[in-house]
Amino acid sequence: MQDADLFVGLDVGGTKTAVLVVNAAGYVQSQAVVPTRTAHPDALLDTINRAIQVALTAAKATPARIRSIGLGIPGQVNPATGIVKMAVNLNLQSYSLGAAISNQFNVPALIENDARTATVGAFNYLRQTEPIQSMAYLSVGTGLSAGVILNGHLYRGHNGMAGEIGHMPILQDGEICKCGLHGCLETIVSGPAIVRQMAATLPSAQTSFQNAGNVYEEAAQGNTAAQAVIQYVSQHLSRAIQWLILTYDVEKIVLGGGVTRSGAKFLAPILQELTILRQQSTLAAEMLQAEKLYLVSHKHNPGEWGAVHLAAQAVSEELTIFPENDKGRSTVKI
Amino acid sequence: MQDADLFVGLDVGGTKTAVLVVNAAGYVQSQAVVPTRTAHPDALLDTINRAIQVALTAAKATPARIRSIGLGIPGQVNPATGIVKMAVNLNLQSYSLGAAISNQFNVPALIENDARTATVGAFNYLRQTEPIQSMAYLSVGTGLSAGVILNGHLYRGHNGMAGEIGHMPILQDGEICKCGLHGCLETIVSGPAIVRQMAATLPSAQTSFQNAGNVYEEAAQGNTAAQAVIQYVSQHLSRAIQWLILTYDVEKIVLGGGVTRSGAKFLAPILQELTILRQQSTLAAEMLQAEKLYLVSHKHNPGEWGAVHLAAQAVSEELTIFPENDKGRSTVKI
Repeated sequence: MQDADLFVGLDVGGTKTAVLVVNAAGYVQSQAVVPTRTAHPDALLDTINRAIQVALTAAKATPARIRSIGLGIPGQVNPATGIVKMAVNLNLQSYSLGAAISNQFNVPALIENDARTATVGAFNYLRQTEPIQSMAYLSVGTGLSAGVILNGHLYRGHNGMAGEIGHMPILQDGEICKCGLHGCLETIVSGPAIVRQMAATLPSAQTSFQNAGNVYEEAAQGNTAAQAVIQYVSQHLSRAIQWLILTYDVEKIVLGGGVTRSGAKFLAPILQELTILRQQSTLAAEMLQAEKLYLVSHKHNPGEWGAVHLAAQAVSEELTIFPENDKGRSTVKI
Repeated sequence: MQDADLFVGLDVGGTKTAVLVVNAAGYVQSQAVVPTRTAHPDALLDTINRAIQVALTAAKATPARIRSIGLGIPGQVNPATGIVKMAVNLNLQSYSLGAAISNQFNVPALIENDARTATVGAFNYLRQTEPIQSMAYLSVGTGLSAGVILNGHLYRGHNGMAGEIGHMPILQDGEICKCGLHGCLETIVSGPAIVRQMAATLPSAQTSFQNAGNVYEEAAQGNTAAQAVIQYVSQHLSRAIQWLILTYDVEKIVLGGGVTRSGAKFLAPILQELTILRQQSTLAAEMLQAEKLYLVSHKHNPGEWGAVHLAAQAVSEELTIFPENDKGRSTVKI
């Protein structure tokens, strides 16, 4: 393989699709973001083609230089067959996306669920500085789920459902979850759930908050109702973290996803909760050290990088990336 | 290796120590149970010696025929160093038990925590009839913990704490747990917790129940207070099972430990809870099939068998056992 060969990684979201092109030496060649079209499967494939074309143009490269493609997408994904199921935000009931991409570009393609793709990205990022072999990536966004690395490898479980902790019922008579059960963790800890809990504190006529970030911001500015919501959510987030550590006993818990973009406002109340638990218990003090937590940085996109690593994995390569590679890349937004 | 070589497995408990002697062909040679002496570490080593001697005599064998020894013990165990810590019921703060046994008999010895040892036993037992590669063993006894098999191997976690789910806090202002936290799962789901919950329903003067088995028995005979306790416990047990499946996505959940000896009385209310969850949710219907649950039989002791498998593992052997081997063995009780 030559350094001229390119690994293409795509992070497909409900509204936009990001693509990152990295050469075989691990250096970023280009990055692009295009709007995701979701009218039908062909529209999604067009989006993917378009994103790749834009990024290749920015990298002054031809499709012939693509060695392999990796892709993360929200939905149930079977990487072995390349089939995506139940990607409701993308209008895909069941679609053979892996084969479609592979045929289009005539290169190997590996696809995975978006949270797991970000898990792979975050793991490879952390490994640059720490020799870890295990971690859980807790994705707090539209939903709540965890991706898991055990013994240095992505752990998917028997049915590819490992880490679906958003659907743990924790409130006996809680709100009904989209899964059908009552009081699932995701009905408390997720972007939409935070907005709903905040709305419930307001008179019905009052304009509600757009997203979880607004609620964190409002809490920071002293709104006591917002503070109460954030404290309640953070308590349950701490439990989720504790559960992941008690079950998997991993070295790191990485926090990512839309809700975590509130940064320190998001992290501080969780750390406070964990401090209380550590003070109460020797076991908790051993297991719940603050150093185990890692918040994904604004500057690093584990979803895109994870997809690039999947691309390398599709051709059985291991990609070495360097922290400085993530800087100064040519970025194209459309 | 000859079939004459013997694998010795020990299951050390707070009150009794069981030993199982199996030859290299996987046939049971003898079994014995002796009282555990716990005055000091030497007394425990004497207990182990005595148990092995009794079993060897029953098998008409000499110590020279022992190929290796495996042992399960309640406490924090590091199998790599053979050191047992915090075995409070056995008066061991920190003791190099693996080396002591190995030196005594001049053979390799592998020790492990009792729940994990039973996990190994249950996994090998199930594998005789089903080609499973993953399972969780939920031990419901004096405490609550899970042992986990992933990808065909015991999964211990980074600090050997994987599966310590008894210390997951689930009731905000619940009873204080021996770990220091409030409302841990173990304060509801464990033998002593069941007895305490039952006692709380009785006038203080009234004699309380001896053990969880009595409470299950009482519930079966129509005592409504006992029924309420069992229902509450079973709800939380079902949650624990559900959480284990959502996190690890294993093929089987095996239920073992003292409390499970109530058999059908123990299992029925759990199955009822899971049926309700399956009716509410497609995800639950997919993940929580009754066939995933397996209750350890009275006739099979996964703790002893697991220890025998550890013995085989200590000399890098794989032991094939046959279901019929567990019958008609010569049993010695002291």
